[in-house]
Amino acid sequence: MSHPNDPKLRSFIDVAPTSDFPIQNLPYGVFSSKDGLASRVGVAIGDYVLDLWELEQGSRLDVGPLGVFSQPSLNPFMALGPKVWSKTRARISELLRSDHPELRDNRELRARALVPTADVKLHMPFAVAGYTDFYSSKEHATNVGVMFRGKDNALQPNWLHMPIGYNGRASTVVVTGTKVRRPRGQLKPPAAELPSFGPCKRLDFELEMGVVVGQASAMGEMLTEKQAEEMIFGFVILNDWSARDIQQWEYVPLGPFQAKAFATSISPWVVTREALEPFRTQGPAQDPTPLAYLKQAQPNNYDLVLEVGLRAGAMNDARTVCSTNFKYMYWSSVQQLVHHASSGCAMNVGDLLGSGTISGPEKHQRGSLLEISWNGTEPVELADGVKRTFLEDGDSLVMRGWCQGDGYRVGFGEVEGTVDAAE
Amino acid sequence: MSHPNDPKLRSFIDVAPTSDFPIQNLPYGVFSSKDGLASRVGVAIGDYVLDLWELEQGSRLDVGPLGVFSQPSLNPFMALGPKVWSKTRARISELLRSDHPELRDNRELRARALVPTADVKLHMPFAVAGYTDFYSSKEHATNVGVMFRGKDNALQPNWLHMPIGYNGRASTVVVTGTKVRRPRGQLKPPAAELPSFGPCKRLDFELEMGVVVGQASAMGEMLTEKQAEEMIFGFVILNDWSARDIQQWEYVPLGPFQAKAFATSISPWVVTREALEPFRTQGPAQDPTPLAYLKQAQPNNYDLVLEVGLRAGAMNDARTVCSTNFKYMYWSSVQQLVHHASSGCAMNVGDLLGSGTISGPEKHQRGSLLEISWNGTEPVELADGVKRTFLEDGDSLVMRGWCQGDGYRVGFGEVEGTVDAAE
Repeated sequence: MSHPNDPKLRSFIDVAPTSDFPIQNLPYGVFSSKDGLASRVGVAIGDYVLDLWELEQGSRLDVGPLGVFSQPSLNPFMALGPKVWSKTRARISELLRSDHPELRDNRELRARALVPTADVKLHMPFAVAGYTDFYSSKEHATNVGVMFRGKDNALQPNWLHMPIGYNGRASTVVVTGTKVRRPRGQLKPPAAELPSFGPCKRLDFELEMGVVVGQASAMGEMLTEKQAEEMIFGFVILNDWSARDIQQWEYVPLGPFQAKAFATSISPWVVTREALEPFRTQGPAQDPTPLAYLKQAQPNNYDLVLEVGLRAGAMNDARTVCSTNFKYMYWSSVQQLVHHASSGCAMNVGDLLGSGTISGPEKHQRGSLLEISWNGTEPVELADGVKRTFLEDGDSLVMRGWCQGDGYRVGFGEVEGTVDAAE
Repeated sequence: MSHPNDPKLRSFIDVAPTSDFPIQNLPYGVFSSKDGLASRVGVAIGDYVLDLWELEQGSRLDVGPLGVFSQPSLNPFMALGPKVWSKTRARISELLRSDHPELRDNRELRARALVPTADVKLHMPFAVAGYTDFYSSKEHATNVGVMFRGKDNALQPNWLHMPIGYNGRASTVVVTGTKVRRPRGQLKPPAAELPSFGPCKRLDFELEMGVVVGQASAMGEMLTEKQAEEMIFGFVILNDWSARDIQQWEYVPLGPFQAKAFATSISPWVVTREALEPFRTQGPAQDPTPLAYLKQAQPNNYDLVLEVGLRAGAMNDARTVCSTNFKYMYWSSVQQLVHHASSGCAMNVGDLLGSGTISGPEKHQRGSLLEISWNGTEPVELADGVKRTFLEDGDSLVMRGWCQGDGYRVGFGEVEGTVDAAE
């Protein structure tokens, strides 16, 4: 049987070369359709969703306990572990191959199991157990540091020694398409003597990738690089919406709280670690050499193109405001996970780890409006007469990302979010 | 029917005046017993646990959907809301009253429904949805500020304007009796040029109360004082174990992460807000006046005595190292919850909000070893020749708390944790 990552593999379903969902991808999501059935697990292939519960019921997909794919969450499937993930991916790939007749030649089964994407609603693909947000792009940390502390103290002393991160709020992680209400909070501009309470005036996005942890680790135990990697089920694109003015006033000394608590948006499809394997690449050189527990025996970054589009209410199409790449991250997802468990912190199935804003070395690679508008001093022009420093009500933010293969893409769909007024 | 809070109320079960669990308390927990049945919900009364699943099955306790008390978690019961909480408390109180024959005179039912506490194992009483830790004792924040920034800059400028807090790690909240392994992490004492990785050398406790949120709020919505109060199901005592040296190196600029991620211990009984009602008291005057969204129309503090005992391995009994009171908290639990939702952050059934370390104005009221030993400079003597600045392997930490009524106590049981070596 061909390996699911074989670049020559073809499906009997037509997939355009620019589609995010060729047979080399096979990302998992949760969907419902017009048939009125409950939300369940599916896999994206071209313009279709393959209904895994239909296949499981028909005994064409056996992952163990029956009903794993009938759930409105990937967590039960993820809990089965990496061997089952691999086996299931290989079997789904086989079912979709152009030279495999089982599904291809069964018209009735195809009609039941392949649902046009246009007819489905996509839901949160997994239940978020815990949400942690890192800060692992050196370019982003440096940009922010220069703005607030000047060039000479841009990076904090600890930054080059560990992946700095904080616990985020899991309750407001939402799927693409969910409207985001402008948060209210305490604001105290530097010139004001006292804080006031009102709608955030410096609403921002942060372009990130999210790691979806698919296996648990025990309290009190550390992880090796290999153990951490095998716990990673897949990745999503993540928009860490941020209220810069709320953050500025609240964050000393315990970090961001309400400034990041109102919404975090993710893409609907979890692209598996296995599907990203051909795009593995070396990250930036790490100097100083990381402490032993953070050392990597293999490259753990990915060559993954990322784009952010911003559409003001009056515009027809989004204007690209950032084009960058996941490969620039200084600390890899594996290092983040190893560090996360280093104190003995138990990890759970469904934990989501945000990479931190992904900026690159060039100006057009900056992954937040804070950096793009240089703290509001350099407005970006979106269209004739339409400028932005931060997000306004009615603005839509769209993130996309993909790994470019030879004649195909392994992509994530998009993360879209539109800003609603505070009241 | 007598109100469950009536101080004159008596149960047919003998309860000593110093017991934590008279009929005025009726705290909820999750237990299993030697009968081999699954973990289920019970209420503490004197030296017994009242098995609510037994009562529910026998149609003596009707809360709605059958099986609410057969779960190993209070979450399904909490989700039913404050009216059901009140009704259930009144019914349980009735069943236990000395002048009510239903349970008192039914020997067979008593044998089935009342399990000696000595024969049960207590489990985590609820599934922690999210864990948030505040920093709301002015005395604690001032002590820490003086140690690290000097007297003139002790309180950060934002502290008097809002309850400062951060998201903690829910996956390592554990019940009393769970051993706590000394965490490892990056340490960089001020004199060291580079960080090293190893066992924490400044392991500490923090005496806190925890609010158990029993109702959800919607994303994008704020809460009033009244709404927030009605969402609070009850309280536990909470030990926010802290690695001071890991924290010192990692916490700038995003706050505590691994320094607090390895363990948080709670008491096994959730004492309901209703049971604490007679002990409601005015908190410290708030100056400056809080912004409108944080204003309180009623006193939201509680007169609740708290004690911390520390027992080194060689000692027979714990030595009391802190005696304080929950009433000293500057920001109340209701204000914390209102602030938590102020950006539109959704709250969930099972959210746990730590109050922050509860120190009082006097030296013996300091709620952490950091303060008690004044950053390690003033060792505390536990017994002849046994001194401590921070916790050593084998040390046991015990927290207790109760509200003192006239001839009875409404208490929490204890939170005990013993420190295991890092390896």
